[in-house]
Amino acid sequence: MNDVVRYIAAHRDAFLSDLTEWLSIPSVSGDPARAGDVRRSAEWLAAHLRRTGFPTVEVWETGGHPAVFAEWPAADAAAPAALVYGHHDVQPVEPLDEWETDPFAPVQRGDRLIGRGTSDDKGQIFFHTLGLRAGLAASGASAPPVTLKLLVEGEEESGSVHFADLLRERRDRLACDVVVISDTTMWAEDVPSMCTGMRGLTEAELTVRGPDTDLHSGSFGGAVPNPLHALATMVAALHDADGRVTLPGFYDDVIPLTDDERVLFAKLPFDEDAWLRTAGNSRAAYGEAGYTTLERVWARPTAEVNGMWGGHTGPGGKTIVPREAHAKISFRLVAGQDPARVQEQFRAWAAAHTPPGVAVEVRIPGGGVRPCFSPIDSPGVRAARAAMERAFGTEILFTREGGSGPEADLADVLGAPLVFLAVGLAGDRIHAPNEKVEIPLLLKGAEAAAYLWDELAAALR
Amino acid sequence: MNDVVRYIAAHRDAFLSDLTEWLSIPSVSGDPARAGDVRRSAEWLAAHLRRTGFPTVEVWETGGHPAVFAEWPAADAAAPAALVYGHHDVQPVEPLDEWETDPFAPVQRGDRLIGRGTSDDKGQIFFHTLGLRAGLAASGASAPPVTLKLLVEGEEESGSVHFADLLRERRDRLACDVVVISDTTMWAEDVPSMCTGMRGLTEAELTVRGPDTDLHSGSFGGAVPNPLHALATMVAALHDADGRVTLPGFYDDVIPLTDDERVLFAKLPFDEDAWLRTAGNSRAAYGEAGYTTLERVWARPTAEVNGMWGGHTGPGGKTIVPREAHAKISFRLVAGQDPARVQEQFRAWAAAHTPPGVAVEVRIPGGGVRPCFSPIDSPGVRAARAAMERAFGTEILFTREGGSGPEADLADVLGAPLVFLAVGLAGDRIHAPNEKVEIPLLLKGAEAAAYLWDELAAALR
Repeated sequence: MNDVVRYIAAHRDAFLSDLTEWLSIPSVSGDPARAGDVRRSAEWLAAHLRRTGFPTVEVWETGGHPAVFAEWPAADAAAPAALVYGHHDVQPVEPLDEWETDPFAPVQRGDRLIGRGTSDDKGQIFFHTLGLRAGLAASGASAPPVTLKLLVEGEEESGSVHFADLLRERRDRLACDVVVISDTTMWAEDVPSMCTGMRGLTEAELTVRGPDTDLHSGSFGGAVPNPLHALATMVAALHDADGRVTLPGFYDDVIPLTDDERVLFAKLPFDEDAWLRTAGNSRAAYGEAGYTTLERVWARPTAEVNGMWGGHTGPGGKTIVPREAHAKISFRLVAGQDPARVQEQFRAWAAAHTPPGVAVEVRIPGGGVRPCFSPIDSPGVRAARAAMERAFGTEILFTREGGSGPEADLADVLGAPLVFLAVGLAGDRIHAPNEKVEIPLLLKGAEAAAYLWDELAAALR
Repeated sequence: MNDVVRYIAAHRDAFLSDLTEWLSIPSVSGDPARAGDVRRSAEWLAAHLRRTGFPTVEVWETGGHPAVFAEWPAADAAAPAALVYGHHDVQPVEPLDEWETDPFAPVQRGDRLIGRGTSDDKGQIFFHTLGLRAGLAASGASAPPVTLKLLVEGEEESGSVHFADLLRERRDRLACDVVVISDTTMWAEDVPSMCTGMRGLTEAELTVRGPDTDLHSGSFGGAVPNPLHALATMVAALHDADGRVTLPGFYDDVIPLTDDERVLFAKLPFDEDAWLRTAGNSRAAYGEAGYTTLERVWARPTAEVNGMWGGHTGPGGKTIVPREAHAKISFRLVAGQDPARVQEQFRAWAAAHTPPGVAVEVRIPGGGVRPCFSPIDSPGVRAARAAMERAFGTEILFTREGGSGPEADLADVLGAPLVFLAVGLAGDRIHAPNEKVEIPLLLKGAEAAAYLWDELAAALR
């Protein structure tokens, strides 16, 4: 047992006691009635970070709920800076009658801590405070080996609506060489892993217009273009027979999976039948030829139709040629792709695929979300993986996430690589009743965090 | 001037005066408050048919508004029987403020009679009474040369909901060798024409099911089948590159257009640009390769998607893989096709075209409507054409109708060929404010009707 482990074991009860106090504040950002609690949660965290030793701790106002910022400079002014990101707000707790315990009166049952926010995300932020103190205690240093910054937002569970603005306003204070995200999950309790990327997103709405009014299909059907046919033809043409997206240039910028990544993905004990059950009992896996299900979800871009409508959609029949047809389409983007470029590709594709006799309009509602990605051989990922391997004593595998959160804004605005250090599990029931965290994993997270700053200082110097 | 023409000229004013009295009864079948008026209209017509000389006149009750039946047996018991079909109910008159005159106080302006029902359909039923009397006066006979039956329904403008039942109940009384429909239009005032067919119809609803619930497209997109993609693929596959419907066997039963029909269709002065304007300013004509626009609308079967929906159709984005997708599809059928057979073909097609990983359900809401069609060289059509040519003194061209009404039930239940004798015009503003009829055309209709029974008696004997 090394000094870090000893420190963590010695402070386990105090850590859980403090965390329980924080978890008791119902910081539900989506409930306007809880705005005061979200603020109390920020202030509680700020006070705790001061007690932890951060020389600078500030509660930052946003257009919505406050965020907490803390900074602890390295002794060595040339040391790299790392920013830890997480959030102190939590999901609503409804349906309340499905909770076995009070969501805001956390309870320990065996190795589990049960309550709202235990895993998502208070518990995972909190292990950094214990890890940092353990690292300092073990090394005897009075400051961390990197300049350590924390940014803990209060609106993640309600869409991080003011987060990108906050990042832009505070860009100078947040400047860093690496961002450590502690808001994801590992593959399994016995299969520790690190996320290395999240898919980006861009959305579009496609409108196909035909006649000025709905036409009687008896009088006109078969002799004028039908916008619903035209739309279906376009949507069907979005993919080729191999399930590949047909936008010219769509894959040009995609950073391909490396052989190493594919080997490491393949080491994950993936049960496709079980996965299909989580996918709403989907009848079969289906996607781009040449890739596994995990590769498709994590590392390959997609085009999905999210909604489609036109003509008569109510009960009974109405034999019309409808005036227009609509589809909402979104593209999940992966490492290397740029939402703006895909938007251009889609516009060009739609113009080139417009069937005769109809007009097509493409509306792009926003700039989209960039994908984020850290190569597995990048210094930050190697350092974090080394810290995780020291803590878990086993090989750390890699995952990615198919969706995207505010993380992309961090990479985008701060221009720093992301590293994901987190110990949540898919089974933690985040966003659901009876959310829990495995206490041994929280302590492993603290241990990995204790090693992380040394590893990063060495890797990034 | 022959005796028929002379008789019609001599009785013109009385004819218009009687018609005006009938038109003044607001027999709007779609307005429950007008039920009494629809009944008055039936009783008025019954009284007039008695005055015309029909030995048998009956008001027939239905589940809704009453119909009028009349019969005048031929002197020769071996003579064929003809049934004239029309309707005495009318469309609503809203928006009332767009009428230049009171819709139920008919007004003559020059050669026009303006009012609701003048063209659709009281005027066109009424010319038969004048024509019949003119024919009898000219021949000096005391009975028509065919056994003449009239069936004038009271619910055509509200969907003929009880009509098929009425036909089945009264099949014996209605037995005939030919049905004469007087409820359509001619090509133009100076291009007299006869309709020879109407397209049939069958409808289907296609449902594609994927996962049990909508899925997050970040977590699952690209790795499970998307029901909207699957639906679009199926809808796109309904037609081939030549605009032909891909149901195996779909065209097998179609009675092809004859060269004569195509030549006669081509003689119609068709202005495609003007037609496109009536088609809601459609940008282009489009349809099955190898056919003209008129041929496509009148004589070729179609598959049309009338409605399509699934996933997120409201404002904003929602990045889901939706659980299901729907399309309402209808097929217009032409001479020779059977709705039941097309329904089977569609079920087989849907099963064969179901994309991998989704389930497809086909719902067929009803039995459909048979197409009706009378070959241009059939005895009934030749006789009616001869009668029209004698009245108009010019070649009678042929049209068809792209939609279908209760006429198909007549052909179906009574098992008799249909012949269309009508003098309405597309410009008569039926179903719209300021409906009118051209009085000279009504009188030509009467004249053609006067000749028709001789012609039919000779042709069908």
